[in-house]
Amino acid sequence: MMDKIKEIGFIGLGSMGEPMAKNLLKAGFGVTVYNRNKDKAQACIALGAKPAKHPCDVLKTAEVVNGPHGISSSLRPGVIHLSMSTIAPATSKKLDAEHKEKGAVYLAATVSGRPAGAIAGTLWIFLAGENKAKEKVKPVLDALGKRTFDLGEESPNANVFKLAGNFLILSSIQALAEAFAFVEKNGLSPKQAGEIFTESLFSCQIYHTYAPLLAEQRFEPAGFALHLGFKDFRLLRAAAAESFIPMPLASLLHEQLLACMAHGCENMDWSVIGKLCRQNANL
Amino acid sequence: MMDKIKEIGFIGLGSMGEPMAKNLLKAGFGVTVYNRNKDKAQACIALGAKPAKHPCDVLKTAEVVNGPHGISSSLRPGVIHLSMSTIAPATSKKLDAEHKEKGAVYLAATVSGRPAGAIAGTLWIFLAGENKAKEKVKPVLDALGKRTFDLGEESPNANVFKLAGNFLILSSIQALAEAFAFVEKNGLSPKQAGEIFTESLFSCQIYHTYAPLLAEQRFEPAGFALHLGFKDFRLLRAAAAESFIPMPLASLLHEQLLACMAHGCENMDWSVIGKLCRQNANL
Amino acid sequence: MMDKIKEIGFIGLGSMGEPMAKNLLKAGFGVTVYNRNKDKAQACIALGAKPAKHPCDVLKTAEVVNGPHGISSSLRPGVIHLSMSTIAPATSKKLDAEHKEKGAVYLAATVSGRPAGAIAGTLWIFLAGENKAKEKVKPVLDALGKRTFDLGEESPNANVFKLAGNFLILSSIQALAEAFAFVEKNGLSPKQAGEIFTESLFSCQIYHTYAPLLAEQRFEPAGFALHLGFKDFRLLRAAAAESFIPMPLASLLHEQLLACMAHGCENMDWSVIGKLCRQNANL
Amino acid sequence: MMDKIKEIGFIGLGSMGEPMAKNLLKAGFGVTVYNRNKDKAQACIALGAKPAKHPCDVLKTAEVVNGPHGISSSLRPGVIHLSMSTIAPATSKKLDAEHKEKGAVYLAATVSGRPAGAIAGTLWIFLAGENKAKEKVKPVLDALGKRTFDLGEESPNANVFKLAGNFLILSSIQALAEAFAFVEKNGLSPKQAGEIFTESLFSCQIYHTYAPLLAEQRFEPAGFALHLGFKDFRLLRAAAAESFIPMPLASLLHEQLLACMAHGCENMDWSVIGKLCRQNANL
Repeated sequence: MMDKIKEIGFIGLGSMGEPMAKNLLKAGFGVTVYNRNKDKAQACIALGAKPAKHPCDVLKTAEVVNGPHGISSSLRPGVIHLSMSTIAPATSKKLDAEHKEKGAVYLAATVSGRPAGAIAGTLWIFLAGENKAKEKVKPVLDALGKRTFDLGEESPNANVFKLAGNFLILSSIQALAEAFAFVEKNGLSPKQAGEIFTESLFSCQIYHTYAPLLAEQRFEPAGFALHLGFKDFRLLRAAAAESFIPMPLASLLHEQLLACMAHGCENMDWSVIGKLCRQNANL
Repeated sequence: MMDKIKEIGFIGLGSMGEPMAKNLLKAGFGVTVYNRNKDKAQACIALGAKPAKHPCDVLKTAEVVNGPHGISSSLRPGVIHLSMSTIAPATSKKLDAEHKEKGAVYLAATVSGRPAGAIAGTLWIFLAGENKAKEKVKPVLDALGKRTFDLGEESPNANVFKLAGNFLILSSIQALAEAFAFVEKNGLSPKQAGEIFTESLFSCQIYHTYAPLLAEQRFEPAGFALHLGFKDFRLLRAAAAESFIPMPLASLLHEQLLACMAHGCENMDWSVIGKLCRQNANL
Repeated sequence: MMDKIKEIGFIGLGSMGEPMAKNLLKAGFGVTVYNRNKDKAQACIALGAKPAKHPCDVLKTAEVVNGPHGISSSLRPGVIHLSMSTIAPATSKKLDAEHKEKGAVYLAATVSGRPAGAIAGTLWIFLAGENKAKEKVKPVLDALGKRTFDLGEESPNANVFKLAGNFLILSSIQALAEAFAFVEKNGLSPKQAGEIFTESLFSCQIYHTYAPLLAEQRFEPAGFALHLGFKDFRLLRAAAAESFIPMPLASLLHEQLLACMAHGCENMDWSVIGKLCRQNANL
Repeated sequence: MMDKIKEIGFIGLGSMGEPMAKNLLKAGFGVTVYNRNKDKAQACIALGAKPAKHPCDVLKTAEVVNGPHGISSSLRPGVIHLSMSTIAPATSKKLDAEHKEKGAVYLAATVSGRPAGAIAGTLWIFLAGENKAKEKVKPVLDALGKRTFDLGEESPNANVFKLAGNFLILSSIQALAEAFAFVEKNGLSPKQAGEIFTESLFSCQIYHTYAPLLAEQRFEPAGFALHLGFKDFRLLRAAAAESFIPMPLASLLHEQLLACMAHGCENMDWSVIGKLCRQNANL
C-alpha cells in the first residue's frame, strides 16, 4: 500500500497559484509556500501555510513539490516534483532526466482554466509521467481540478498537449473576433450572435468564456495575460519549427499577439487580439 | 387566432432536404415535393408526398414553400417562402423585397447540422423575417430542428449569421488539424488528444463532430461537401469585402479550400482541409 | 502594304489617360476624345483633340478606339478597339468574341506605369490579340510607351499578365514595408536601407518607385489609387478562385488593402498598405 | 598613413567561402585557411594558401580574420575580425563587445550573392563597425565584391540589413511562384511571363536570378541551400519577435520553408518553396 501524501511544497502564488494553494490547505494538506514577492504569500500563511525563504526550502518538508525550477539542486529520493507551468516539451524531457538521476520523480501536470477555475477548484489537469507517482498525487490534483487526464508516462506529453490546447483556444478567440466584426458590420449584435453560438454549435467552456469578453471588448482584468500567452506561443512555434510542422493558423495568431505586444497590452487578457480585428475593420 | 399551416411545398431533396421533408411528413403536414432529379423524390412520395413537375408547382397547394428560388414568378399573397439554403445576405434582402411586392412573405431560416441531424430532426435553425410569419411556421420548424433562434425581422440576418457560423466551424477544423499534426509529430495520438479536448475545454457539437473525422482522416462520405463549403466561403468573403472587413483567418481558410478544390476533392467532406495540413507536415 | 492609322478615338482622360492622349496628339495622330466629366477634356481639346459627346461618337472618325466599353453597339469592320484598362480575363474573352462578330478587332493592351510614365511616354505595354491588328497599332503604342511586349493572339493573355504584374508589385510593396519596419525598430533608417537595396539587389523600376514612397510614408497624391488596386485584386482573386489556384500571398495582400479601404484611404496611393505595417508595429 | 593588410586568416570554405578565398589569393594577399573538412582546403592550398589546423591558428599570421567564431579566445590587439556569415544582430553586438575587450576589432561584413557571384568577385557587401578598420579592409573587400555599402559604426546594422535583404529576396520568390502558377493555369507560359517581367518592371538581379529557376523548376544544385535560408529566417523572426514587429509576410514565408524542410528538401535551393505553390495548385 502506498503512503499518502501529507506535505506539499508550493512555488508560485500568482493569480492561478494562490487559489490553488488555498484549495490544498482547505483539503487538509500541509503546505509550505514560496513566492518571489513575499507579500503575496501572506494570504496563504494566514490560512495555515508555512513560509519558505528560498524555492529549495519548500523541499524541507515536501513530499510533493509543485511549481517551477530552481529546486533541482536539492531534489532527493522520494520527492515528487509536480510541474504545473507551461514549459517547452524539450525542457520537460530534460528536467525529467535530471530528476531521475537524483531518485526524485518529475511529473508534468499542466492545467487549463482561468483564475475563476483555480478558485473553484475546477481546473482541467493534463498529467504525464511515472504511473506510480501519478497515482500518489491523485488526491492532490483532486483538490485542484475537476478532472485529471492521463497522458502516459512521458512527461513532455503533458506539455505538448497544453501547447496544443492553448493554440486551439486562441484560434477560437480569433475566429470569434472575425465573426463578430463580420456580423456587426452587417447589422447583427455580437452579443446576440455569441449567445446563439454558445447555445447551439459551440456550447462549451472556451466559447462560453471568450464570446462575452469579445462581445463586450472587456480585456481587463486579465484572466490570462497577453505576455504569458505570447510566451506560450513562442514555445509552441519553436517546437513546431523543430519538428518541421507548418502551422499557418498558429503563425497568423502569433502575428496578432505580436501586434498587441507592440502596443503595450502585455498585461491585458490575451483575447485583446480581438481588438485588433475591430481596429482593422474600423469598428 | 392564426390558421395553422397544413400544406407545405418543398424544393430540393439532397442529403439534407430529403430527411427534412420526411420529418415534415411524419409530423403530419401535407408535403408537395420538387427535385431536379425526379428519381430522388421517390422515397418521399412513397411516404405520402405529392410530386411537383416544376418548382412553381409546389405553390399550387402550399402555404409554406421551403427551398430555393425560381418560384418567385408565381408567388401570391398568403404564401410564406421559407428559404433554408445558404445564400448571400444581399440576395436575401432582394428576395425579401420581391416577395413583399407580391404580398407573399420571405423568411430566411438557415440551418446548421449535417445529414445525421437532418434525419434525427435535431438541426439548429436561425430564423429571420416578419414576426407574424415566424410564429406561423414554428410548428414546421419544430418538426425539423431541436431549436429555432430568432434573429429579428430583417431576413439577411439569418444569412449573415449562417455565414459567420460556417466560418467558425471551418476555423475549428483547421485549428484541430494543425493541433493534431503538432501532437502527432511530438508523440501523442490525435485520437487521444481529440478525446481529451472534447471532454474538457471543447465539449460541444462541432468539436465532437470533427475531432474524430480528423483523427481518423475520414473524409468520405461527405457530411458537408467541400464544393458547398467553398461556395459558402465565397459568399462570406464577398460580403466581407463589400463591407470592408479584413478577415485574415477566413482568408487563410479560403486558401485551404482552394487547394483541396484544385486536387479534385470537391465531393469529399470539407474537413478534408485537414489532409493538407498533414501533407504539408509530411505526415 | 498596310494603311497607316491616322484617326484615333480615345475614351477616358484620367490621370493616366490624359497624358496618353496628349502624347498621341504630339505624335501627329488625329484624336477624338471622350470623358464622362467634360471639363477634363479641355486640356486635350486645347491641343487639337476633337470632342465626342458619347463614347460611341469617338467611332465616327476612329480607326483605332482606345478605351473602355459601351462602344460595342456601334463597332464596325475595320475598327480596332485597343482596350488598355485592367479588366478580367474572362471579360476580355467575351469582348473579343463580340468584336469578331461585328468584324471589328479587339486588342488587349494593358499598361504598366504611373502618371509620370504616362506623361513621359515610357509606359510598358502588354499586347495581345490578332497579329495583323497588333502590327497596325504599333505606331500608336510607340507614342505611348517605351516598349510593347507581344503576348500572343489570345486577348485575355494581356489581362492575365497585367493582373499578375499588379500582384508582383504589391508583393514588393508589402515586403519593403515589413523590411522597413524591421530595420527601423532595429536602428537602421528605412531611407538608407531603401537606397542600398535599390542600388544593389533590387535595382529596378518598381523598387525605385516604391522604396522612397514607403521610407517617407508619402501616400498622396496617389500614383495608383487604392480603390483601383483593390478592384484589380478582386479581379485577380476571382480569376484565381475560378481556376483553383491557391495564392496565400495574394490573399494576405487583399487583407491589407481591405483594412486600408475600411479606413477611408481609397484615394491614397495603394502603397498606403505600408502604413498598416508601421501601425501594427506601433511605429 | 595606415599600414596595408597583407595577411588574412580565412575560416570556412563552403560554396561561397572557397571562391572568396581564391579571389583573395589572386589579389595578392597571403591567406591562411581553415575548414572543418580538411579535404576542401586543398584547392586553395594548391593556389598558395597556408593550411591551419584549428580556427585559432589562422590568427598566427593574420591581420584580418574572415569567418566565424571559436577564435575569440586568441584574439589580440591589431587583429580585425571580418565576420561575413549571417548571424543574429544580438550575437553581433555581443561579439563586438568581446572583441573590444581584447583590443581587437569586430566588423560585420555580410554579403549577398550566390556562388556565381563569389566566383566572379561580384558580391554585394554590407559593412558595419569601426570606421578606421572599415577603411583598412577596403582592399580586401574590393577583391571579393563589386561594391561595399557602409552601414555605420554599429556592427549589428550589417546583420539587420542582411536579414531584411534575405526576407525581400524570399518574398520575391514566393510572389513569382504564385504569379507563375496563376499565369500558367490561365494559358501563359511562366518562362515568357518571367522574361517580360525581368525586361520591364523587375529588371534587377534578384528577379533575373530567380525567375528562370522558378519557370524551369530547377532547384538543384542549390545556390543557397534551403536549410541555410531556414536558419536565417529563424534569426529574422526571433529578432522581429524581440522587437515586437509583426511581419505577416515573413510569417507566411516561414511556413513555406517549414513545409519544404518537412519534405526533406534541405539541400535544395531555397526557391524550392515555388514547388509547393505548384503542388497546391495541382500543377
